[in-house]
Amino acid sequence: MSLYEASIPQFSKMLTNLAAWLGKAEAYAETKKFDPAVLLGSRLAPDQLPLIRQIQIACDSAKNGSARVTGKQAPSHPDNEQTLEQIRARIKLTLTYLATFSAEDFAGAETRKVNVPVLGKLALGQDHLYEQVLPNFYFHLTTAYAILRHNGVDLGKADYFGSLKLQDA
Amino acid sequence: MSLYEASIPQFSKMLTNLAAWLGKAEAYAETKKFDPAVLLGSRLAPDQLPLIRQIQIACDSAKNGSARVTGKQAPSHPDNEQTLEQIRARIKLTLTYLATFSAEDFAGAETRKVNVPVLGKLALGQDHLYEQVLPNFYFHLTTAYAILRHNGVDLGKADYFGSLKLQDA
Repeated sequence: MSLYEASIPQFSKMLTNLAAWLGKAEAYAETKKFDPAVLLGSRLAPDQLPLIRQIQIACDSAKNGSARVTGKQAPSHPDNEQTLEQIRARIKLTLTYLATFSAEDFAGAETRKVNVPVLGKLALGQDHLYEQVLPNFYFHLTTAYAILRHNGVDLGKADYFGSLKLQDA
Repeated sequence: MSLYEASIPQFSKMLTNLAAWLGKAEAYAETKKFDPAVLLGSRLAPDQLPLIRQIQIACDSAKNGSARVTGKQAPSHPDNEQTLEQIRARIKLTLTYLATFSAEDFAGAETRKVNVPVLGKLALGQDHLYEQVLPNFYFHLTTAYAILRHNGVDLGKADYFGSLKLQDA
């Protein structure tokens, strides 16, 4: 087992799920006859980031976290999206980048010393992934989900989890 | 590396953080002179579970997930809490159970076939942990956080992450 399994497949699947939530959000806006951009500007508290920023940060958390623990330089994706179509393209761009990673890229990632953003400290790759990257990714993903649910979009747990690797009992 | 590092330390730390959020929620209720139980009954959508259930499910997700992937039988913790004091005790009970796990308990957990609740299917321990247990744990934790934020409790990212294993640069 490597940190690859703990990260890349989940990042990719969950971001794909997120794109599908946006599809439901768009259909909901059409039914209710409002501009879906209203949802992108929605937030759960006045001092909380709106949906569009939650999506951008979820994308960057996966992109930059994967790059950091594998010792790569991540491409910069500027936060200039304003429409549903643009934010969908951002998710797709992130998915394309994530698809470039292989399990081999994560060899030695557990003990790689990585620069932790903002804090100006170092952390071991494994600690960084488990303590910061994954919790941050799920935080922004779930906050995006919560904003959509709060605004009436019909989402459920199956939409959150997406497809699962199961075997017959 | 074993699945232990991917799960138990984070479960324990994040549930400890959750207990601290409730401390802030209680102080906020005192300042604003309302019953903190109002927060426990709050939700972000009429068809979403309230805060107290989000906490109970986060606890059970950690407890039952850890038991399943290690082939143990988890104790049952009935969902009968109604007060802040009771839900704090529930978190503490979960933390005490999580503290019984050692890294050795997770030997072979990656390929252990576990029964997936509700779905009536099997999944490999590693897939179950990464695809269901961890995403579910963070989902309910973040939803609890979002309910508190939505209701005005002063929480930030540092409250979410808690203490980090960092090294000087």
